[in-house]
Amino acid sequence: MAELLSGTEVSRSLDERTAKKAEMLRRRGVVPKLVIVRCGENPSDLSYERGAMKRAEALGVRTHRIVLGDQATKEELLQVIRELNADTGVHGVLLFRPLPKHLAAFESGICNALDPEKDVDSMTDISHAGVYENREIGFPPCTPEAVIKILDHYGIEPAGSRVAVIGRSLVVGKPVAMMLMARHATVTVCHTRTADVPGITREADIVVSSAGVLRSLTREHVREGQVIIDVSINWDPSKKDGRGGIAGDADFEEVEKVVKAITPVPGGVGAVTTSVLIEHVVRAAAKTVRE
Amino acid sequence: MAELLSGTEVSRSLDERTAKKAEMLRRRGVVPKLVIVRCGENPSDLSYERGAMKRAEALGVRTHRIVLGDQATKEELLQVIRELNADTGVHGVLLFRPLPKHLAAFESGICNALDPEKDVDSMTDISHAGVYENREIGFPPCTPEAVIKILDHYGIEPAGSRVAVIGRSLVVGKPVAMMLMARHATVTVCHTRTADVPGITREADIVVSSAGVLRSLTREHVREGQVIIDVSINWDPSKKDGRGGIAGDADFEEVEKVVKAITPVPGGVGAVTTSVLIEHVVRAAAKTVRE
Repeated sequence: MAELLSGTEVSRSLDERTAKKAEMLRRRGVVPKLVIVRCGENPSDLSYERGAMKRAEALGVRTHRIVLGDQATKEELLQVIRELNADTGVHGVLLFRPLPKHLAAFESGICNALDPEKDVDSMTDISHAGVYENREIGFPPCTPEAVIKILDHYGIEPAGSRVAVIGRSLVVGKPVAMMLMARHATVTVCHTRTADVPGITREADIVVSSAGVLRSLTREHVREGQVIIDVSINWDPSKKDGRGGIAGDADFEEVEKVVKAITPVPGGVGAVTTSVLIEHVVRAAAKTVRE
Repeated sequence: MAELLSGTEVSRSLDERTAKKAEMLRRRGVVPKLVIVRCGENPSDLSYERGAMKRAEALGVRTHRIVLGDQATKEELLQVIRELNADTGVHGVLLFRPLPKHLAAFESGICNALDPEKDVDSMTDISHAGVYENREIGFPPCTPEAVIKILDHYGIEPAGSRVAVIGRSLVVGKPVAMMLMARHATVTVCHTRTADVPGITREADIVVSSAGVLRSLTREHVREGQVIIDVSINWDPSKKDGRGGIAGDADFEEVEKVVKAITPVPGGVGAVTTSVLIEHVVRAAAKTVRE
């Protein structure tokens, strides 16, 4: 039986510190503020938005929502971003992506219009460069940072260890590889064109799976003593007696019999992501005080 | 006996294509132009500068040199960069780094003042983001691109293969890992904190060594059938009957007995780097025509 690495526990501990920092800022006259910008009414955006706003308010971070129709023009969106850049009372901006189809061609230009100092969800090239260069410019994406927070919380040291990352996206795979490399892990990135994924993951001390494929991480991929960080959130129709529920990449029942520790889904990495987002807003606000 | 992957040959073939592109641009009234900016008289800068200027002129790329004293101020340097940004006749800028010590704290600000469209030597955050995101913004650094050119020239396909990169610098290790990952290789990045480098390199089909340590890649690190790309340029005092000469990371005599193919030093990756730089200048000039 593997140790369960509860994200909920990590989230609680991170939130406590964030709330204290927000309180200290408030005493200095700065109320951290997050603005969420959305085009249209995508249900998964709405659900994330509700969670983020609720969490933010609970931790002393003010929130504001700007909702544009799903027919919003490039110019409207750019105007909103320019105004948020200029507003010194706004510290973090979250823009839901992907943008509506008619804006897809302008997505990079729109994302990069945001001041990197307010880019709490890592959508600018400068934030990407920060992760790649291991420098504090912009903000890293929330999910890979949540992975690092979980390792830190449970005292799992990446330095000197071997890590297999499954997936090479800009949202999880690449940044988590960079962050773990900066912490002196030896990282191998596997993807859809990798010949022998199980052979590679079995050699690793830590496996970070972001394949996004239900039951893609099986008994064959793991060995004793490993730590498994399951980042994906997949829909598993067999859960809850056939009513369905969310699940990670791991064939959980089989894998957890073998490995040393594993993050559950739900209640693992996903539970920490919103906490990281709010912490970014508070950090962005703290920077304006120092300056 | 391993096949020798001659960089000189790759360089010649690349230069031919670059000269043709430059000639086509000249017929359209655009003469590609590289400006080299230097503070002081560092001997290795001078040597690279001579090589780059000579090669550029031979390929139909105009060059200009701006030499500031080693006491140049931040403001002087920024002023030079601003003028080069504004000059539509200048397509590529190469600034020698590291800057003199008194400018070290401003290096990032100075580098990022350059228009990424003219950043032919990859010193801006935008160029770094381009490599990381696998998008054509700015330019990748010349040395890792030289590695890719060598693989392409000799028909060595990274897709589906395993690659071990030794070194995690922003100049070689990280970008070459990103570029090979974009070409569907499964990449492991080793570094000074990696526990078992020989074990990892032996598993790879392609080894890219940028450790910068003479004879650090030994018989123990390699096996039959491998391709070794030796990026480092080290000083080997034992060469030329004790007069000394340059050498890579590989214990060449031992390694080349075992592996399938290897780049020599000199005449390997280093021979291609300048060709890539000049090709970037021509590409930068071509973009101004298309627009």
